[in-house]
Amino acid sequence: MDKKTVGLSDAFKGNAAPKNFTKNPIKGTKYTIAISSAKGGVGKSTFAMNFALALKSTGSKVGILDADIYGPSLPKMMSINEKPKSEDGKSLVPINQYGIQCMSIGFLVDEETPMIWRGPMVTSAIKTFSQKVLWNDLDFIIVDMPPGTGDTQLTFSQEIKVDGVIIVSTPQEIALLDVKRGINMFDKLKVPILGLVDNMSFFQSDDGEKHNIFGEGGVEKVAVDYKKKFLGKIPIDIDLRVSADTGKPLFEKNPQHNISKIFLEIAKKIKVSFL
Amino acid sequence: MDKKTVGLSDAFKGNAAPKNFTKNPIKGTKYTIAISSAKGGVGKSTFAMNFALALKSTGSKVGILDADIYGPSLPKMMSINEKPKSEDGKSLVPINQYGIQCMSIGFLVDEETPMIWRGPMVTSAIKTFSQKVLWNDLDFIIVDMPPGTGDTQLTFSQEIKVDGVIIVSTPQEIALLDVKRGINMFDKLKVPILGLVDNMSFFQSDDGEKHNIFGEGGVEKVAVDYKKKFLGKIPIDIDLRVSADTGKPLFEKNPQHNISKIFLEIAKKIKVSFL
Repeated sequence: MDKKTVGLSDAFKGNAAPKNFTKNPIKGTKYTIAISSAKGGVGKSTFAMNFALALKSTGSKVGILDADIYGPSLPKMMSINEKPKSEDGKSLVPINQYGIQCMSIGFLVDEETPMIWRGPMVTSAIKTFSQKVLWNDLDFIIVDMPPGTGDTQLTFSQEIKVDGVIIVSTPQEIALLDVKRGINMFDKLKVPILGLVDNMSFFQSDDGEKHNIFGEGGVEKVAVDYKKKFLGKIPIDIDLRVSADTGKPLFEKNPQHNISKIFLEIAKKIKVSFL
Repeated sequence: MDKKTVGLSDAFKGNAAPKNFTKNPIKGTKYTIAISSAKGGVGKSTFAMNFALALKSTGSKVGILDADIYGPSLPKMMSINEKPKSEDGKSLVPINQYGIQCMSIGFLVDEETPMIWRGPMVTSAIKTFSQKVLWNDLDFIIVDMPPGTGDTQLTFSQEIKVDGVIIVSTPQEIALLDVKRGINMFDKLKVPILGLVDNMSFFQSDDGEKHNIFGEGGVEKVAVDYKKKFLGKIPIDIDLRVSADTGKPLFEKNPQHNISKIFLEIAKKIKVSFL
Protein backbone atom coordinates (compact mmCIF):
# COMPACT_ATOMS: atom_id res chain seq x y z
CA MET A 1 0.00 0.00 0.00
CA ASP A 2 1.45 3.38 -0.82
CA LYS A 3 -1.56 5.38 0.30
CA LYS A 4 -0.71 8.73 1.79
CA THR A 5 -2.42 10.33 4.72
CA VAL A 6 -3.98 13.63 3.77
CA GLY A 7 -3.52 16.97 5.53
CA LEU A 8 -5.83 19.91 5.38
CA SER A 9 -3.89 21.78 2.71
CA ASP A 10 -4.06 18.80 0.38
CA ALA A 11 -7.79 18.49 0.70
CA PHE A 12 -8.83 22.12 0.46
CA LYS A 13 -7.51 25.16 -1.23
CA GLY A 14 -7.51 28.47 0.62
CA ASN A 15 -5.69 30.42 3.23
CA ALA A 16 -6.89 31.86 6.50
CA ALA A 17 -3.78 33.97 7.11
CA PRO A 18 -4.65 37.16 8.98
CA LYS A 19 -4.54 40.41 7.01
CA ASN A 20 -4.39 43.89 8.44
CA PHE A 21 -7.73 45.54 9.09
CA THR A 22 -8.87 48.82 10.57
CA LYS A 23 -10.85 48.10 13.68
CA ASN A 24 -13.57 50.64 14.36
CA PRO A 25 -15.40 50.89 17.66
CA ILE A 26 -19.17 50.54 17.44
CA LYS A 27 -20.47 54.10 17.19
CA GLY A 28 -22.16 55.46 20.29
CA THR A 29 -20.49 52.93 22.57
CA LYS A 30 -17.44 53.00 24.79
CA TYR A 31 -16.59 49.31 25.26
CA THR A 32 -17.60 46.25 23.26
CA ILE A 33 -17.79 42.94 25.10
CA ALA A 34 -18.57 39.81 23.09
CA ILE A 35 -20.18 36.78 24.69
CA SER A 36 -19.01 33.72 22.85
CA SER A 37 -18.97 29.98 23.21
CA ALA A 38 -18.00 28.54 19.83
CA LYS A 39 -20.57 25.85 20.67
CA GLY A 40 -24.31 26.55 20.65
CA GLY A 41 -26.80 25.64 23.32
CA VAL A 42 -24.59 26.29 26.31
CA GLY A 43 -26.73 29.15 27.62
CA LYS A 44 -24.77 31.96 26.01
CA SER A 45 -27.79 34.15 25.25
CA THR A 46 -29.29 33.64 28.70
CA PHE A 47 -25.90 34.62 30.08
CA ALA A 48 -25.67 37.69 27.80
CA MET A 49 -29.09 39.07 28.82
CA ASN A 50 -28.60 38.57 32.57
CA PHE A 51 -25.02 39.80 32.43
CA ALA A 52 -26.15 42.97 30.62
CA LEU A 53 -28.83 43.63 33.24
CA ALA A 54 -26.37 42.98 36.06
CA LEU A 55 -23.92 45.42 34.48
CA LYS A 56 -26.70 47.99 34.16
CA SER A 57 -27.53 47.59 37.85
CA THR A 58 -24.00 48.77 38.67
CA GLY A 59 -24.81 52.12 37.07
CA SER A 60 -23.52 51.58 33.53
CA LYS A 61 -25.41 52.34 30.33
CA VAL A 62 -25.69 49.03 28.49
CA GLY A 63 -26.86 47.77 25.11
CA ILE A 64 -27.19 44.28 23.64
CA LEU A 65 -26.44 43.48 20.03
CA ASP A 66 -27.77 40.06 19.10
CA ALA A 67 -25.25 38.94 16.47
CA ASP A 68 -26.81 35.52 15.99
CA ILE A 69 -28.35 35.97 12.58
CA TYR A 70 -29.51 32.36 12.19
CA GLY A 71 -30.87 31.93 15.69
CA PRO A 72 -31.71 35.27 17.29
CA SER A 73 -32.87 34.84 20.91
CA LEU A 74 -33.07 38.43 22.05
CA PRO A 75 -36.63 39.24 20.91
CA LYS A 76 -38.09 36.33 22.87
CA MET A 77 -35.81 36.55 25.90
CA MET A 78 -36.44 40.30 26.27
CA SER A 79 -40.13 40.28 25.15
CA ILE A 80 -39.65 42.62 22.22
CA ASN A 81 -42.29 42.45 19.50
CA GLU A 82 -41.83 45.71 17.68
CA LYS A 83 -39.88 46.76 14.63
CA PRO A 84 -37.11 49.35 15.11
CA LYS A 85 -37.73 52.90 13.87
CA SER A 86 -35.59 54.81 11.43
CA GLU A 87 -35.27 58.56 10.86
CA ASP A 88 -33.71 58.31 7.42
CA GLY A 89 -34.63 54.82 6.21
CA LYS A 90 -31.03 53.68 6.63
CA SER A 91 -30.07 53.81 10.27
CA LEU A 92 -31.92 51.90 12.97
CA VAL A 93 -32.96 53.10 16.40
CA PRO A 94 -32.35 50.41 19.04
CA ILE A 95 -35.33 49.32 21.11
CA ASN A 96 -35.27 50.03 24.82
CA GLN A 97 -36.34 47.23 27.12
CA TYR A 98 -35.70 46.91 30.86
CA GLY A 99 -33.38 49.91 30.51
CA ILE A 100 -31.20 48.16 27.91
CA GLN A 101 -30.79 49.30 24.29
CA CYS A 102 -31.40 46.27 22.07
CA MET A 103 -30.94 45.26 18.43
CA SER A 104 -31.53 41.92 16.73
CA ILE A 105 -32.22 40.58 13.25
CA GLY A 106 -35.29 39.12 14.94
CA PHE A 107 -36.79 42.63 15.10
CA LEU A 108 -36.84 42.75 11.30
CA VAL A 109 -38.44 39.40 10.47
CA ASP A 110 -41.19 37.20 11.81
CA GLU A 111 -39.77 35.01 14.57
CA GLU A 112 -40.40 31.78 12.72
CA THR A 113 -38.78 32.93 9.47
CA PRO A 114 -35.41 31.27 8.91
CA MET A 115 -32.60 33.48 7.60
CA ILE A 116 -31.45 31.16 4.81
CA TRP A 117 -28.35 33.14 4.07
CA ARG A 118 -24.85 32.38 2.90
CA GLY A 119 -21.89 33.98 4.65
CA PRO A 120 -21.58 37.26 2.75
CA MET A 121 -25.19 38.19 3.63
CA VAL A 122 -24.45 37.50 7.27
CA THR A 123 -21.39 39.72 7.08
CA SER A 124 -23.47 42.49 5.54
CA ALA A 125 -26.04 42.21 8.34
CA ILE A 126 -23.33 42.36 11.00
CA LYS A 127 -21.86 45.48 9.40
CA THR A 128 -25.28 47.13 9.33
CA PHE A 129 -25.77 46.33 13.01
CA SER A 130 -22.37 47.62 14.02
CA GLN A 131 -22.34 50.73 11.85
CA LYS A 132 -25.93 51.83 11.31
CA VAL A 133 -27.57 51.38 14.68
CA LEU A 134 -27.96 54.61 16.63
CA TRP A 135 -26.64 53.35 19.96
CA ASN A 136 -27.03 56.18 22.42
CA ASP A 137 -24.04 56.92 24.62
CA LEU A 138 -23.43 53.40 25.91
CA ASP A 139 -20.73 52.44 28.37
CA PHE A 140 -20.91 48.81 27.31
CA ILE A 141 -22.35 47.02 24.35
CA ILE A 142 -22.75 43.30 24.92
CA VAL A 143 -22.56 41.28 21.71
CA ASP A 144 -24.32 37.92 21.82
CA MET A 145 -22.27 35.92 19.31
CA PRO A 146 -23.50 32.92 17.30
CA PRO A 147 -21.80 29.54 17.62
CA GLY A 148 -18.88 28.74 15.34
CA THR A 149 -15.68 30.40 14.22
CA GLY A 150 -16.94 31.82 10.94
CA ASP A 151 -18.15 34.97 9.23
CA THR A 152 -19.59 36.72 12.26
CA GLN A 153 -16.57 36.04 14.46
CA LEU A 154 -14.19 37.08 11.68
CA THR A 155 -16.08 40.28 10.92
CA PHE A 156 -16.14 41.30 14.57
CA SER A 157 -12.52 40.39 15.19
CA GLN A 158 -11.14 42.01 12.07
CA GLU A 159 -13.26 45.07 11.50
CA ILE A 160 -14.72 46.01 14.87
CA LYS A 161 -12.84 47.03 17.98
CA VAL A 162 -13.86 44.29 20.42
CA ASP A 163 -12.46 45.15 23.85
CA GLY A 164 -12.89 41.71 25.26
CA VAL A 165 -14.70 38.43 25.02
CA ILE A 166 -16.28 36.28 27.70
CA ILE A 167 -16.39 32.60 26.81
CA VAL A 168 -19.32 30.63 28.21
CA SER A 169 -19.44 26.84 28.20
CA THR A 170 -20.96 23.84 29.88
CA PRO A 171 -18.38 21.58 31.52
CA GLN A 172 -19.05 18.76 29.04
CA GLU A 173 -15.87 17.41 27.39
CA ILE A 174 -17.28 17.76 23.92
CA ALA A 175 -18.22 21.40 24.57
CA LEU A 176 -14.78 22.12 25.98
CA LEU A 177 -13.24 21.15 22.67
CA ASP A 178 -15.18 23.99 21.08
CA VAL A 179 -14.06 26.28 23.89
CA LYS A 180 -10.43 25.48 23.16
CA ARG A 181 -10.98 26.18 19.49
CA GLY A 182 -12.67 29.46 20.46
CA ILE A 183 -9.77 30.49 22.69
CA ASN A 184 -7.30 29.69 19.93
CA MET A 185 -9.34 31.72 17.46
CA PHE A 186 -9.57 34.84 19.63
CA ASP A 187 -5.89 34.56 20.56
CA LYS A 188 -4.99 34.28 16.88
CA LEU A 189 -7.21 37.23 15.96
CA LYS A 190 -5.82 39.20 18.91
CA VAL A 191 -9.11 39.75 20.71
CA PRO A 192 -8.52 39.86 24.49
CA ILE A 193 -10.27 37.10 26.44
CA LEU A 194 -11.74 38.52 29.67
CA GLY A 195 -12.43 35.11 31.13
CA LEU A 196 -14.36 31.85 31.08
CA VAL A 197 -17.71 31.01 32.68
CA ASP A 198 -18.83 27.50 33.61
CA ASN A 199 -22.55 27.41 32.81
CA MET A 200 -25.00 24.63 33.67
CA SER A 201 -22.34 23.50 36.15
CA PHE A 202 -24.61 21.12 38.01
CA PHE A 203 -28.26 20.52 38.82
CA GLN A 204 -29.40 20.46 42.42
CA SER A 205 -32.57 18.46 43.05
CA ASP A 206 -34.93 19.26 45.93
CA ASP A 207 -33.21 16.76 48.21
CA GLY A 208 -30.07 18.90 47.93
CA GLU A 209 -28.15 16.39 45.85
CA LYS A 210 -25.90 17.84 43.17
CA HIS A 211 -26.02 16.10 39.80
CA ASN A 212 -23.09 16.75 37.47
CA ILE A 213 -25.22 16.34 34.39
CA PHE A 214 -22.62 17.79 32.07
CA GLY A 215 -19.52 16.73 33.99
CA GLU A 216 -17.52 18.67 36.52
CA GLY A 217 -14.78 21.26 36.70
CA GLY A 218 -13.95 21.17 33.01
CA VAL A 219 -14.19 24.88 32.24
CA GLU A 220 -12.03 25.90 35.18
CA LYS A 221 -9.41 23.39 34.09
CA VAL A 222 -9.37 24.83 30.56
CA ALA A 223 -9.00 28.33 32.07
CA VAL A 224 -5.97 27.18 34.04
CA ASP A 225 -4.44 25.32 31.09
CA TYR A 226 -4.82 28.30 28.75
CA LYS A 227 -3.90 30.88 31.42
CA LYS A 228 -7.27 32.65 31.23
CA LYS A 229 -9.28 34.08 34.09
CA PHE A 230 -12.05 31.85 35.50
CA LEU A 231 -15.08 34.04 36.16
CA GLY A 232 -17.42 31.68 37.95
CA LYS A 233 -19.91 28.83 37.88
CA ILE A 234 -23.62 29.11 37.16
CA PRO A 235 -25.69 26.03 38.08
CA ILE A 236 -28.58 24.68 36.03
CA ASP A 237 -31.61 26.47 37.38
CA ILE A 238 -35.18 26.06 36.28
CA ASP A 239 -36.04 29.66 37.29
CA LEU A 240 -33.28 30.90 35.00
CA ARG A 241 -34.59 28.87 32.05
CA VAL A 242 -38.24 29.74 32.68
CA SER A 243 -37.48 33.45 32.92
CA ALA A 244 -35.60 33.31 29.59
CA ASP A 245 -38.47 31.41 28.01
CA THR A 246 -41.04 33.88 29.27
CA GLY A 247 -39.30 37.05 28.18
CA LYS A 248 -38.09 38.52 31.44
CA PRO A 249 -34.51 37.61 32.37
CA LEU A 250 -34.09 36.37 35.93
CA PHE A 251 -31.92 39.33 36.90
CA GLU A 252 -34.75 41.71 35.94
CA LYS A 253 -37.42 39.58 37.60
CA ASN A 254 -35.55 38.95 40.83
CA PRO A 255 -32.18 40.61 41.37
CA GLN A 256 -32.02 38.95 44.82
CA HIS A 257 -32.14 35.40 43.41
CA ASN A 258 -29.02 33.37 44.15
CA ILE A 259 -28.30 33.07 40.45
CA SER A 260 -28.74 36.83 39.96
CA LYS A 261 -26.11 37.38 42.61
CA ILE A 262 -23.66 35.26 40.62
CA PHE A 263 -24.31 37.42 37.55
CA LEU A 264 -23.72 40.55 39.61
CA GLU A 265 -20.42 39.18 40.88
CA ILE A 266 -19.27 38.45 37.35
CA ALA A 267 -20.45 41.86 36.11
CA LYS A 268 -18.47 43.59 38.85
CA LYS A 269 -15.33 41.59 38.02
CA ILE A 270 -15.62 42.58 34.39
CA LYS A 271 -16.43 46.22 35.06
CA VAL A 272 -13.40 46.63 37.31
CA SER A 273 -11.15 45.54 34.47
CA PHE A 274 -12.39 48.52 32.39
CA LEU A 275 -12.03 51.21 35.06
CA MET B 1 -42.67 61.95 14.87
CA ASP B 2 -42.64 60.65 11.36
CA LYS B 3 -40.20 57.82 12.00
CA LYS B 4 -40.89 54.75 9.93
CA THR B 5 -40.56 51.21 11.14
CA VAL B 6 -38.01 49.29 9.13
CA GLY B 7 -38.48 45.92 7.46
CA LEU B 8 -35.81 43.52 6.44
CA SER B 9 -35.68 44.56 2.80
CA ASP B 10 -35.07 48.18 3.80
CA ALA B 11 -32.18 47.27 6.02
CA PHE B 12 -30.34 44.77 3.87
CA LYS B 13 -29.88 44.20 0.21
CA GLY B 14 -30.06 40.68 -1.15
CA ASN B 15 -32.43 37.94 -2.06
CA ALA B 16 -32.68 34.37 -0.85
CA ALA B 17 -35.10 33.25 -3.55
CA PRO B 18 -34.55 29.59 -4.45
CA LYS B 19 -32.91 28.85 -7.78
CA ASN B 20 -32.94 25.55 -9.59
CA PHE B 21 -30.10 23.21 -8.75
CA THR B 22 -29.12 19.71 -9.75
CA LYS B 23 -29.18 17.53 -6.67
CA ASN B 24 -26.66 14.71 -6.77
CA PRO B 25 -26.73 11.78 -4.37
CA ILE B 26 -23.59 11.30 -2.32
CA LYS B 27 -21.52 8.78 -4.29
CA GLY B 28 -21.36 5.28 -2.85
CA THR B 29 -24.48 5.77 -0.74
CA LYS B 30 -28.13 4.88 -1.19
CA TYR B 31 -29.93 7.23 1.20
CA THR B 32 -28.80 10.45 2.83
CA ILE B 33 -30.35 11.34 6.18
CA ALA B 34 -29.43 14.67 7.75
CA ILE B 35 -29.61 15.21 11.51
CA SER B 36 -30.39 18.84 12.13
CA SER B 37 -31.51 21.12 14.90
CA ALA B 38 -30.93 24.70 13.73
CA LYS B 39 -29.85 25.29 17.34
CA GLY B 40 -26.57 23.96 18.71
CA GLY B 41 -26.05 22.10 21.93
CA VAL B 42 -29.23 20.08 21.90
CA GLY B 43 -27.44 16.74 21.62
CA LYS B 44 -27.58 16.45 17.86
CA SER B 45 -24.17 14.82 17.45
CA THR B 46 -24.78 12.38 20.30
CA PHE B 47 -28.06 11.53 18.60
CA ALA B 48 -26.39 11.13 15.20
CA MET B 49 -23.72 8.69 16.46
CA ASN B 50 -26.12 6.50 18.45
CA PHE B 51 -28.74 6.60 15.72
CA ALA B 52 -26.15 5.49 13.15
CA LEU B 53 -25.07 2.59 15.35
CA ALA B 54 -28.69 1.58 15.99
CA LEU B 55 -29.36 1.66 12.26
CA LYS B 56 -26.29 -0.50 11.68
CA SER B 57 -27.53 -3.02 14.24
CA THR B 58 -30.62 -3.57 12.05
CA GLY B 59 -28.33 -4.87 9.30
CA SER B 60 -27.77 -1.73 7.24
CA LYS B 61 -24.42 -0.43 6.06
CA VAL B 62 -24.03 3.02 7.59
CA GLY B 63 -21.66 5.98 7.38
CA ILE B 64 -21.47 9.27 9.24
CA LEU B 65 -20.48 12.52 7.59
CA ASP B 66 -19.70 15.17 10.19
CA ALA B 67 -20.75 18.36 8.40
CA ASP B 68 -20.02 20.64 11.33
CA ILE B 69 -16.91 22.38 10.06
CA TYR B 70 -16.61 24.81 12.98
CA GLY B 71 -17.35 22.30 15.72
CA PRO B 72 -16.66 18.73 14.61
CA SER B 73 -17.61 16.22 17.33
CA LEU B 74 -17.16 12.96 15.49
CA PRO B 75 -13.43 12.37 16.12
CA LYS B 76 -13.88 12.63 19.88
CA MET B 77 -17.25 10.87 20.12
CA MET B 78 -16.02 7.94 18.01
CA SER B 79 -12.40 7.90 19.30
CA ILE B 80 -10.77 8.50 15.94
CA ASN B 81 -7.27 9.91 16.01
CA GLU B 82 -5.94 9.11 12.56
CA LYS B 83 -5.81 10.99 9.30
CA PRO B 84 -7.72 9.57 6.35
CA LYS B 85 -5.77 7.92 3.53
CA SER B 86 -5.88 8.86 -0.10
CA GLU B 87 -4.99 6.81 -3.20
CA ASP B 88 -4.63 9.74 -5.54
CA GLY B 89 -4.07 12.74 -3.26
CA LYS B 90 -7.56 14.04 -4.03
CA SER B 91 -10.15 11.62 -2.78
CA LEU B 92 -10.40 10.56 0.85
CA VAL B 93 -10.96 7.09 2.27
CA PRO B 94 -13.42 7.19 5.18
CA ILE B 95 -12.25 5.79 8.49
CA ASN B 96 -13.97 2.70 9.85
CA GLN B 97 -14.89 2.72 13.51
CA TYR B 98 -17.38 0.46 15.31
CA GLY B 99 -18.44 -0.77 11.85
CA ILE B 100 -19.36 2.74 10.68
CA GLN B 101 -17.61 4.61 7.85
CA CYS B 102 -16.71 8.07 9.17
CA MET B 103 -15.51 11.40 7.78
CA SER B 104 -14.95 14.71 9.57
CA ILE B 105 -12.95 17.90 9.08
CA GLY B 106 -11.60 16.98 12.51
CA PHE B 107 -9.58 14.17 10.89
CA LEU B 108 -7.61 16.74 8.92
CA VAL B 109 -6.65 19.19 11.65
CA ASP B 110 -5.56 19.08 15.24
CA GLU B 111 -8.63 18.94 17.46
CA GLU B 112 -7.96 22.27 19.11
CA THR B 113 -7.39 24.16 15.86
CA PRO B 114 -10.29 26.47 15.04
CA MET B 115 -11.47 26.56 11.43
CA ILE B 116 -11.56 30.33 11.07
CA TRP B 117 -13.31 30.27 7.74
CA ARG B 118 -15.82 32.41 5.93
CA GLY B 119 -18.80 30.79 4.21
CA PRO B 120 -17.32 30.00 0.79
CA MET B 121 -14.55 27.92 2.39
CA VAL B 122 -17.15 25.99 4.34
CA THR B 123 -19.07 25.34 1.15
CA SER B 124 -15.92 24.09 -0.51
CA ALA B 125 -15.25 21.70 2.38
CA ILE B 126 -18.82 20.38 2.25
CA LYS B 127 -18.49 19.75 -1.47
CA THR B 128 -15.24 17.87 -0.95
CA PHE B 129 -16.86 15.72 1.71
CA SER B 130 -19.88 14.92 -0.41
CA GLN B 131 -18.07 14.37 -3.70
CA LYS B 132 -14.57 13.18 -2.92
CA VAL B 133 -14.99 10.71 -0.10
CA LEU B 134 -14.89 7.08 -1.18
CA TRP B 135 -17.94 5.89 0.75
CA ASN B 136 -18.19 2.17 0.19
CA ASP B 137 -21.60 0.82 -0.73
CA LEU B 138 -23.59 2.42 2.10
CA ASP B 139 -27.30 1.96 2.65
CA PHE B 140 -27.48 5.11 4.75
CA ILE B 141 -25.21 8.06 5.23
CA ILE B 142 -26.04 10.07 8.33
CA VAL B 143 -25.06 13.72 8.04
CA ASP B 144 -24.46 15.50 11.33
CA MET B 145 -25.37 19.10 10.44
CA PRO B 146 -24.04 22.24 12.14
CA PRO B 147 -26.42 24.68 13.82
CA GLY B 148 -27.91 27.50 11.78
CA THR B 149 -29.60 27.93 8.43
CA GLY B 150 -26.58 28.99 6.43
CA ASP B 151 -23.97 27.80 3.97
CA THR B 152 -23.88 24.14 4.98
CA GLN B 153 -27.66 23.76 5.04
CA LEU B 154 -27.99 25.57 1.72
CA THR B 155 -25.29 23.52 0.04
CA PHE B 156 -26.84 20.25 1.19
CA SER B 157 -30.38 21.28 0.32
CA GLN B 158 -29.58 22.70 -3.08
CA GLU B 159 -26.80 20.54 -4.44
CA ILE B 160 -27.05 17.20 -2.68
CA LYS B 161 -29.93 14.74 -2.75
CA VAL B 162 -30.96 14.64 0.90
CA ASP B 163 -33.64 11.98 1.32
CA GLY B 164 -34.82 13.20 4.65
CA VAL B 165 -33.96 15.16 7.74
CA ILE B 166 -34.48 14.34 11.40
CA ILE B 167 -34.82 17.41 13.60
CA VAL B 168 -33.54 17.07 17.15
CA SER B 169 -34.35 19.59 19.88
CA THR B 170 -34.62 20.07 23.60
CA PRO B 171 -38.13 21.05 24.71
CA GLN B 172 -37.00 24.52 25.79
CA GLU B 173 -39.12 27.35 24.29
CA ILE B 174 -36.11 29.22 23.01
CA ALA B 175 -34.81 26.09 21.26
CA LEU B 176 -38.22 25.43 19.73
CA LEU B 177 -38.05 28.78 17.98
CA ASP B 178 -34.98 27.53 16.15
CA VAL B 179 -36.78 24.27 15.39
CA LYS B 180 -39.63 26.18 13.76
CA ARG B 181 -37.14 28.16 11.70
CA GLY B 182 -35.47 24.88 10.74
CA ILE B 183 -38.76 23.29 9.67
CA ASN B 184 -39.61 26.35 7.60
CA MET B 185 -36.20 26.25 5.96
CA PHE B 186 -36.37 22.57 4.98
CA ASP B 187 -39.96 22.96 3.79
CA LYS B 188 -38.92 25.93 1.70
CA LEU B 189 -35.91 24.09 0.27
CA LYS B 190 -38.11 21.02 -0.33
CA VAL B 191 -36.13 18.61 1.84
CA PRO B 192 -38.50 16.02 3.38
CA ILE B 193 -38.65 16.09 7.18
CA LEU B 194 -38.73 12.53 8.53
CA GLY B 195 -39.69 13.60 12.02
CA LEU B 196 -38.83 15.38 15.24
CA VAL B 197 -37.03 14.04 18.33
CA ASP B 198 -37.40 15.47 21.83
CA ASN B 199 -33.93 15.24 23.35
CA MET B 200 -32.99 15.93 26.99
CA SER B 201 -36.71 15.55 27.68
CA PHE B 202 -36.33 15.31 31.43
CA PHE B 203 -33.83 14.30 34.09
CA GLN B 204 -34.71 11.54 36.52
CA SER B 205 -32.86 11.68 39.82
CA ASP B 206 -32.17 8.59 41.93
CA ASP B 207 -35.35 9.08 43.97
CA GLY B 208 -37.31 8.57 40.73
CA GLU B 209 -38.46 12.17 40.48
CA LYS B 210 -38.61 13.61 36.96
CA HIS B 211 -37.22 17.11 36.54
CA ASN B 212 -38.33 18.99 33.45
CA ILE B 213 -35.12 20.95 33.27
CA PHE B 214 -35.77 22.22 29.78
CA GLY B 215 -39.59 22.31 29.94
CA GLU B 216 -42.05 19.68 28.84
CA GLY B 217 -43.80 18.45 25.73
CA GLY B 218 -42.65 21.30 23.51
CA VAL B 219 -41.19 19.29 20.65
CA GLU B 220 -44.23 17.05 20.33
CA LYS B 221 -46.47 20.11 20.21
CA VAL B 222 -44.38 21.64 17.41
CA ALA B 223 -44.61 18.32 15.53
CA VAL B 224 -48.41 18.40 15.79
CA ASP B 225 -48.63 22.09 14.85
CA TYR B 226 -46.43 21.64 11.79
CA LYS B 227 -47.93 18.25 10.84
CA LYS B 228 -44.62 16.41 11.20
CA LYS B 229 -44.04 12.95 12.65
CA PHE B 230 -42.97 12.82 16.30
CA LEU B 231 -40.27 10.18 16.63
CA GLY B 232 -39.78 9.95 20.38
CA LYS B 233 -38.34 11.32 23.59
CA ILE B 234 -34.81 10.78 24.89
CA PRO B 235 -34.29 11.71 28.55
CA ILE B 236 -31.17 13.39 29.92
CA ASP B 237 -28.90 10.55 30.88
CA ILE B 238 -25.48 10.78 32.39
CA ASP B 239 -24.42 7.43 30.83
CA LEU B 240 -25.27 8.86 27.41
CA ARG B 241 -23.19 11.98 27.99
CA VAL B 242 -20.25 10.13 29.53
CA SER B 243 -20.13 7.64 26.67
CA ALA B 244 -20.05 10.52 24.15
CA ASP B 245 -17.32 12.24 26.13
CA THR B 246 -15.22 9.09 26.35
CA GLY B 247 -15.38 8.13 22.69
CA LYS B 248 -17.67 5.12 22.67
CA PRO B 249 -21.33 5.92 21.99
CA LEU B 250 -23.76 4.34 24.45
CA PHE B 251 -25.34 2.17 21.76
CA GLU B 252 -21.94 0.60 21.05
CA LYS B 253 -21.08 0.24 24.71
CA ASN B 254 -24.39 -1.17 25.86
CA PRO B 255 -27.08 -1.88 23.27
CA GLN B 256 -29.34 -3.17 26.08
CA HIS B 257 -29.36 0.17 27.92
CA ASN B 258 -32.82 1.76 28.15
CA ILE B 259 -31.62 4.73 26.14
CA SER B 260 -30.12 2.44 23.47
CA LYS B 261 -33.52 0.82 23.09
CA ILE B 262 -35.06 4.20 22.35
CA PHE B 263 -32.46 4.76 19.62
CA LEU B 264 -33.25 1.36 18.16
CA GLU B 265 -36.98 2.15 18.10
CA ILE B 266 -36.32 5.41 16.26
CA ALA B 267 -33.91 3.71 13.83
CA LYS B 268 -36.54 1.08 13.00
CA LYS B 269 -39.20 3.72 12.41
CA ILE B 270 -36.89 5.56 10.03
CA LYS B 271 -35.70 2.45 8.22
CA VAL B 272 -39.25 1.30 7.53
CA SER B 273 -39.96 4.55 5.74
CA PHE B 274 -37.19 3.73 3.24
CA LEU B 275 -38.18 0.12 2.50
